[in-house]
Amino acid sequence: MSVIDAILNPKSVAVVGASNDPAKLTGRPIAYLQANGYKGTIYPINPKSDTVAGLKAYADPRDLPEAPDLGLVLVGANRVIDAVRQLAEAGTRACVVLASGFGEAGEEGRARQDALREAAGDMRILGPNTIGLVNLTDRIALTASGAMEMEDFTTGPIALLSQSGGILGSLLSRAIGRGIGFSKLVATGNECDLEVADFLATLADDPSTTVIAMYLETIRNVTAFRAAAEKVRAAGKQIVVYKVGRSESGARSAVSHTGALAGADEVYDALFRQLGIIRAQTFADLLDIPAALAAGRRLKGNRVAIVTSTGGAATVVADNVGLSGLEMPAPDADTAAKLLALDLKEAVLDRNPIDVTLAGIRPDLFRAILKILAESASYDAIIVVAGSSSIAQPELVSDAVQEAMSITDKPLMVYVSPEAPNIVRHLNRNGIAAYGAPESCASALSALLPREVVTADARPVAVFDSSHLTSGALNEADAKDLYARFGVPVTREVTAATPEAAGEAAAAFDGPVVIKILSSEILHKTEVGGVAVGIQPADVAQACAEMLERVKSHTDAAVDGFLVQELITGGVEMILGYNRDPQLGAYILLGAGGVTTELYQDVALRLLPLDRAGAVQMIHSLKCSALLTGFRGKPAADIEALTDAVLAFSDMACALDDRLSEAEINPLFVLPQGQGARAADGLVVLS
Amino acid sequence: MSVIDAILNPKSVAVVGASNDPAKLTGRPIAYLQANGYKGTIYPINPKSDTVAGLKAYADPRDLPEAPDLGLVLVGANRVIDAVRQLAEAGTRACVVLASGFGEAGEEGRARQDALREAAGDMRILGPNTIGLVNLTDRIALTASGAMEMEDFTTGPIALLSQSGGILGSLLSRAIGRGIGFSKLVATGNECDLEVADFLATLADDPSTTVIAMYLETIRNVTAFRAAAEKVRAAGKQIVVYKVGRSESGARSAVSHTGALAGADEVYDALFRQLGIIRAQTFADLLDIPAALAAGRRLKGNRVAIVTSTGGAATVVADNVGLSGLEMPAPDADTAAKLLALDLKEAVLDRNPIDVTLAGIRPDLFRAILKILAESASYDAIIVVAGSSSIAQPELVSDAVQEAMSITDKPLMVYVSPEAPNIVRHLNRNGIAAYGAPESCASALSALLPREVVTADARPVAVFDSSHLTSGALNEADAKDLYARFGVPVTREVTAATPEAAGEAAAAFDGPVVIKILSSEILHKTEVGGVAVGIQPADVAQACAEMLERVKSHTDAAVDGFLVQELITGGVEMILGYNRDPQLGAYILLGAGGVTTELYQDVALRLLPLDRAGAVQMIHSLKCSALLTGFRGKPAADIEALTDAVLAFSDMACALDDRLSEAEINPLFVLPQGQGARAADGLVVLS
Repeated sequence: MSVIDAILNPKSVAVVGASNDPAKLTGRPIAYLQANGYKGTIYPINPKSDTVAGLKAYADPRDLPEAPDLGLVLVGANRVIDAVRQLAEAGTRACVVLASGFGEAGEEGRARQDALREAAGDMRILGPNTIGLVNLTDRIALTASGAMEMEDFTTGPIALLSQSGGILGSLLSRAIGRGIGFSKLVATGNECDLEVADFLATLADDPSTTVIAMYLETIRNVTAFRAAAEKVRAAGKQIVVYKVGRSESGARSAVSHTGALAGADEVYDALFRQLGIIRAQTFADLLDIPAALAAGRRLKGNRVAIVTSTGGAATVVADNVGLSGLEMPAPDADTAAKLLALDLKEAVLDRNPIDVTLAGIRPDLFRAILKILAESASYDAIIVVAGSSSIAQPELVSDAVQEAMSITDKPLMVYVSPEAPNIVRHLNRNGIAAYGAPESCASALSALLPREVVTADARPVAVFDSSHLTSGALNEADAKDLYARFGVPVTREVTAATPEAAGEAAAAFDGPVVIKILSSEILHKTEVGGVAVGIQPADVAQACAEMLERVKSHTDAAVDGFLVQELITGGVEMILGYNRDPQLGAYILLGAGGVTTELYQDVALRLLPLDRAGAVQMIHSLKCSALLTGFRGKPAADIEALTDAVLAFSDMACALDDRLSEAEINPLFVLPQGQGARAADGLVVLS
Repeated sequence: MSVIDAILNPKSVAVVGASNDPAKLTGRPIAYLQANGYKGTIYPINPKSDTVAGLKAYADPRDLPEAPDLGLVLVGANRVIDAVRQLAEAGTRACVVLASGFGEAGEEGRARQDALREAAGDMRILGPNTIGLVNLTDRIALTASGAMEMEDFTTGPIALLSQSGGILGSLLSRAIGRGIGFSKLVATGNECDLEVADFLATLADDPSTTVIAMYLETIRNVTAFRAAAEKVRAAGKQIVVYKVGRSESGARSAVSHTGALAGADEVYDALFRQLGIIRAQTFADLLDIPAALAAGRRLKGNRVAIVTSTGGAATVVADNVGLSGLEMPAPDADTAAKLLALDLKEAVLDRNPIDVTLAGIRPDLFRAILKILAESASYDAIIVVAGSSSIAQPELVSDAVQEAMSITDKPLMVYVSPEAPNIVRHLNRNGIAAYGAPESCASALSALLPREVVTADARPVAVFDSSHLTSGALNEADAKDLYARFGVPVTREVTAATPEAAGEAAAAFDGPVVIKILSSEILHKTEVGGVAVGIQPADVAQACAEMLERVKSHTDAAVDGFLVQELITGGVEMILGYNRDPQLGAYILLGAGGVTTELYQDVALRLLPLDRAGAVQMIHSLKCSALLTGFRGKPAADIEALTDAVLAFSDMACALDDRLSEAEINPLFVLPQGQGARAADGLVVLS
């Protein structure tokens, strides 16, 4: 049994600080365990009482007749450390620490949290600052929170993990209101030891869980999180995440554009996309999408039938469904003929939404209509709009929908137009996803679409000894030299120490060239007048001399010399960057280059590792990919060469690993098909 | 008294088809009028009964002792025409027709609707296919719908207009659930005569209405709508609209890009923006935003304090508020010092959200905290987050918030974290905007920001005789000739009938030129090889000859000759277009030109008329305006010249009026400051 299993389903629980008074917070946990028929052994730990809640109490966990699976620590922050040390010494596998006043509470709290981990030794900790957990499958509540009492809870296949106890409570009360059921509920609190990833990994194997909903504020161990999420996906289960931090100032202090273009939230978005995790866009989606997924049905196409007895509400639902990119075709001839044969007066049956009018909600007719749509080859899903007449007889809707569900595996869901929380609850409790917001229908349906997840097969990491490279920024020539070693195509160029040498070097070029100042201390050459484009070879020496003067008037930076470079014309300008997110790790950024980079932020992000399929997906996710595939009759660009360049750049990043702080090619020219790609600039910062 | 006043507050009502049985739909209207103490005269019209509901009944409206203000027509579609004719003959000012089976019901229904208008003569009609209206201010219900019974309604300053009866009912039940109150409720149905605009105009003068919420499916008379909306705005009142049709296929059949870039919904968006109408993005916003506006407070800045006793929920609210672009600064030193002086243990008072912990919701402390924030110079609004502990004592929250509201005119609102519809209702009923969705707090607060409405002072319309212009497309030279007459700057160019003539004409140009095929039948010249850029004057004759051959291999279109044009280099490429929306009328489109046009759709739309302020606003609303103002150290473009060009183009559109079907300049080059702008292409289609 894993430690998480021991927490979710312990054979024995020591309740430290348990009170005899069930009205007190510290009296609740044992009362909850007993009320729900807990079958394991409860050991109250209370030095002031011989019995608690009718059970023999112990003064100290070390006096217990066995090592308990779990310790539930109810004492205040100042007494937690001792209690945890005693539990650890008693051989307890894991403990749940409810008290607050640790990592979330300033310097003193952080020190106390360090002491807590120290005191626990090998014993694992959930918390501190958590409201605990509820295992609904086995009806075990390990909490002192009134919000976690199981009385009103519905059991269902959704597990809910939250880094905030308050949010867990809020979601629970909302789920109860909507009739949405759960398997396991866990608040991970400060995550001083166990994290959401630990629970994710265990829930991948939990037969009573098929969907995992998570409220996240951060991810502490991204490696564990990625592994756990992959395990969940491999088990055919879905994860839905509501992650805050979307509005935090994203711009990082970085010398490259890459850091500025990729805010922390964009990197989280990339992570979730890579892992096939659905991101809830609204707080309501965090319950509404799992409720749809819980039914176990998936969309096999994108054609939705909306059936209604009330026009306006169906229009609103259709508008939202359409915004999600789903289609609502009119019934095909066969389906329309079958509907018309029902002889519904005034009904509009040749369009979608299909308006059956009030006549159509007669039980036999409504069943017949849903049966026809369930069997129709035109539709992949059905939304039933319930108006005020339908909700007067909720069984009519739920019976008919359940009957239709029994003859098809298409998703069916219900939109309830008037305010009728009792109807929404009734339907959800009967296994029918039901919503009171038109936007929820749309986001829930979208979540049922098959999602293409491109997993990266790690490519072999090149052995590269980077010890000869010194820390700090490289000049452009050195940066490109490094690129070239990994196969990133760079512009043809020559370095020269003096203007005269540059002039001589330029003679080897056919036509006009680009000249640049060479300096590891100047990362933005244009700003100091350090770039000149389209210089004739004969004018290069003179131009370099003038450039040097211009640069010196701007900066005291040491100059290494000059770069004489082939002039690239035509092609599509891209930006290719590498950066590290402090939480989530190294990632590659590919985007539209030139002025477009900053104006429209058309970029794709992917956390490493990256393989060919991932690189191809990045390219095609860009709006500017239309330029690459041939826009307005222009020739297609060398996408193959771009893909190779992205992979080579990513191979460099993997090989250099944490020696590479930042890298960026801006612009990367992608030439017409067959002519390759060229890095026309290069930035590398080493740590 | 206007006809709308006569409908909203009639002195006498003839109820046609009134039944003696209050259980029947046709028995309800009189029962509702009587139950709410209607003070006017009710005339039941029923040929089969001497009395109805204790009132003398009449067989025919023409038998009435006076001409009634209003006729409420309850009879079925097949009997409506006769009833309406009789009401009109009786001198009735207006009637409400509830029956369906008219314009919404196919060909037959549309014919019946025409007959209905005919029968009404000078009498005005609300409907048909409406559920009627409720005047809550004066407690008059003119409806047969159970959803419109006033029993549970709260009175408030919000008027609700809906083009769908079902949606009106749905919104009402939701508003009742949330404790949101109304002044007037009107379902306009098929709008065969009276439209939402008519009610808007009257509500502008209604002292009991300050906010108007509308559900729109279409706007039938845009001129009336614009005038009414301007009147509402002039009265200092706000309009909030939820408009469906967002997901309809926007692309129009049009020869220009302008039509393809401006879908029907984008034109509605432009209309609403011009009129200062707030567009509800979600269905819930249609109630949530008016609820915030109803309190009458507005934001004077964008700094929001969030005060909470529960961390997670405040984080979620802050994340959403931040996404709206509002700021949440930490308390200034003075505010922080005052909060600290309250001596709240464990509270986090130097950050925002301000976490007062459970200790802080002690009534005296909570009041003191809100008072400090209400008086703080750091904040323009306050959001109170109510957790499960707060909602156990709803008066605590509502009393403290009301007290704070009494000492400040800053907006205050409450986010209720757990599912607690009764608390939301309690707060709203007490005049405190309260929400159960974090997104609602953000959208409601944003709606309280001052919105800059640029009204267009109509410019004098040039007198222009367009009778000499034939219908259809003009060739580029003729199009530019037309532009030039209105002051739109165009490229220097010469037309030539033959390649040889073109070659001679080219000699007058200094350097390389652009040559184009000239044809009113070829609107996409590039696609047929009809454009060549950078041709040396000496090569022009030869290039024209080759071009002619190329074009002839692509198309049989008649060729008018060649255009020899100055080559524009540098400058910012824009697109400037004109088109007509079939519903909303003529508009101007300005956007980023070049490949960007289609990839990023960075465009601004404005319905005519347009003045300088409007043109400036269009320019600055574009992301690509950064290119115009000087991007990455590049020189600023001639924005003045662009503004002039946009105005000249719009003057042309106004002068040609409906003779102009489409016009487009793509590209319009905006040169560096002082160098002007140039239309480098021209498309005009005349009707």
